[in-house]
Amino acid sequence: MSGVMNFKNCGSVLITGASRGLGLQIVDSLANGGFSPGKIIATTRHPASAQKLHELAANHPYIHIIPMDVLNQESIEKSVEEVGQLVQEEGLNCLINNAGINLVADFHTVTAEQMIENFHTNAVAPLMITKAFLPLLKRAASRGGAGSEASMGIQRAAVINVTSLLGSVELNWGERAKNFKWYPYRTSKSALNMVSRCMAVDLEPDGILCMAIHPGWVRTDMGGSEAPLSPEESISSILSVIGGLTEKDHGSFLNFTGEVLPW
Amino acid sequence: MSGVMNFKNCGSVLITGASRGLGLQIVDSLANGGFSPGKIIATTRHPASAQKLHELAANHPYIHIIPMDVLNQESIEKSVEEVGQLVQEEGLNCLINNAGINLVADFHTVTAEQMIENFHTNAVAPLMITKAFLPLLKRAASRGGAGSEASMGIQRAAVINVTSLLGSVELNWGERAKNFKWYPYRTSKSALNMVSRCMAVDLEPDGILCMAIHPGWVRTDMGGSEAPLSPEESISSILSVIGGLTEKDHGSFLNFTGEVLPW
Ligand SMILES: NC(=O)c1ccc[n+]([C@@H]2O[C@H](COP(=O)([O-])OP(=O)(O)OC[C@H]3O[C@@H](n4cnc5c(N)ncnc54)[C@H](OP(=O)(O)O)[C@@H]3O)[C@@H](O)[C@H]2O)c1
Ligand SMILES: NC(=O)c1ccc[n+]([C@@H]2O[C@H](COP(=O)([O-])OP(=O)(O)OC[C@H]3O[C@@H](n4cnc5c(N)ncnc54)[C@H](OP(=O)(O)O)[C@@H]3O)[C@@H](O)[C@H]2O)c1
Repeated sequence: MSGVMNFKNCGSVLITGASRGLGLQIVDSLANGGFSPGKIIATTRHPASAQKLHELAANHPYIHIIPMDVLNQESIEKSVEEVGQLVQEEGLNCLINNAGINLVADFHTVTAEQMIENFHTNAVAPLMITKAFLPLLKRAASRGGAGSEASMGIQRAAVINVTSLLGSVELNWGERAKNFKWYPYRTSKSALNMVSRCMAVDLEPDGILCMAIHPGWVRTDMGGSEAPLSPEESISSILSVIGGLTEKDHGSFLNFTGEVLPW
Repeated sequence: MSGVMNFKNCGSVLITGASRGLGLQIVDSLANGGFSPGKIIATTRHPASAQKLHELAANHPYIHIIPMDVLNQESIEKSVEEVGQLVQEEGLNCLINNAGINLVADFHTVTAEQMIENFHTNAVAPLMITKAFLPLLKRAASRGGAGSEASMGIQRAAVINVTSLLGSVELNWGERAKNFKWYPYRTSKSALNMVSRCMAVDLEPDGILCMAIHPGWVRTDMGGSEAPLSPEESISSILSVIGGLTEKDHGSFLNFTGEVLPW
């Protein structure tokens, strides 16, 4: 039910944007679903004010809170060092690029600055973070059997990009396109989908799985109170999908239910 | 043969990045294909050094050279004013967002700055330019019959975004993905495809057609000398496709041959 059982062969998971919303729920669901003794590395740009994360960590000693501002290269590199100390020769098994923003603007109000800011956080940051964590991901992947011949999945190494259905160019048409005319957000998530696909091609020789997942429309600060899914429901479903990923899912764009979405 | 005959009911075409490469070829092919008496508005960020453009304009009085740096909002707005003076109550029939850059970088070398710069020129600029020219496009569209019920096409108003096959997320896989691992460029063109699709949704009520076209791999400064197509061949084919666009092509992603490409 919780999806977490699929994580039993995964030694470490890193989540970006774990202070609230879906990122916090991933930490919560993993910890309370019995992920132990795996290491849960919860990153946030403002550790001091991430109260709920600290409450969770107080009850679960295998939650490690590490600072990371996904827009700041120095901060990313510092977090790699800290994570390296933590995971040592085991490497990092699962990197979840979850941090994201939604600068709401339509055709008439959108500015170049908003387009660039949303793109930077949602598409460029996951790329820069994955590049920085490559040595730790490779280390984990090689322990699960060298090269791309061995099976892929979170028991070796995986990069999970939290994208959105709103990033699907194909689905942005007809009835569906009448709502959510958010240029900066939609564009950033289409861009993230391309980044995800490019990285899948480049990570394959090291046996590192890479894919993009849509979490559903969820009641968080970003999703709002009208959304049909609770964070628990979304994350339970997502963790079950992530836990079951194999080489056939490499380079894919999946719904939180596990179905393939069109680009 | 030239594709230009399809332009006979189009009163004005504006091209960005007309100093060289495909932009210059569009101006050349339109002018020498007998587009007269239509207005060809050739924009370039450095009019003083656009020698070939000036040579063409010397022979064809209906070529108007207007300065526009697609990254500069003030420059865009100034060009709208000048174009407004030129086209008056006729409005602008066809806006071709052609200017683009390719900052070559792979997974290992790519920087956040390169990602943002390429995104700004290739995806954000076409959006900001289309927004700025909206009043002139609307004016032209309304003269061809008000509302979206009247047929769409360059005889009314159209926004053509010059994109790339490399922006197709779907096609970035398998054998095809082994070359051209250009993160900034691929990502910017996927983003442009989403921008194009978003704009198609928003321009439809005004009867303005919007689509994205891949020019083929062409021997320009960007395409290099190994490319199979000459600029003449590419542009002859493209002009024929653009000239024949109707409402069924609204929101599409087409190859220079007119076939639909996957997102
Ligand atoms: N909720 C939905 O319906 C929905 C639907 C589709 C996709 N998604 C995607 O799911 C992911 C999580 O969304 P959510 O609903 O949980 O959003 P949220 O409630 O707004 O939380 C966003 C998280 O991202 C973090 N963040 C933003 N910028 C950051 C930066 N520069 N450095 C570090 N962390 C940063 C925030 O940290 P602070 O607390 O420090 O601000 C926060 O933890 C996003 O990628 C979103 O696009 C959500
Ligand atoms: N050639 C190909 O094989 C190929 C394939 C697929 C797609 N495309 C696309 O086709 C379009 C044209 O490409 P091309 O091959 O003609 O490239 P090119 O030979 O490199 O020419 C690029 C043009 O864009 C202009 N430009 C760049 N930045 C600008 C700015 N900030 N403001 C104004 N103009 C700017 C350049 O002006 P300056 O002279 O002032 O630099 C030049 O006129 C691009 O969008 C490209 O991505 C080309």
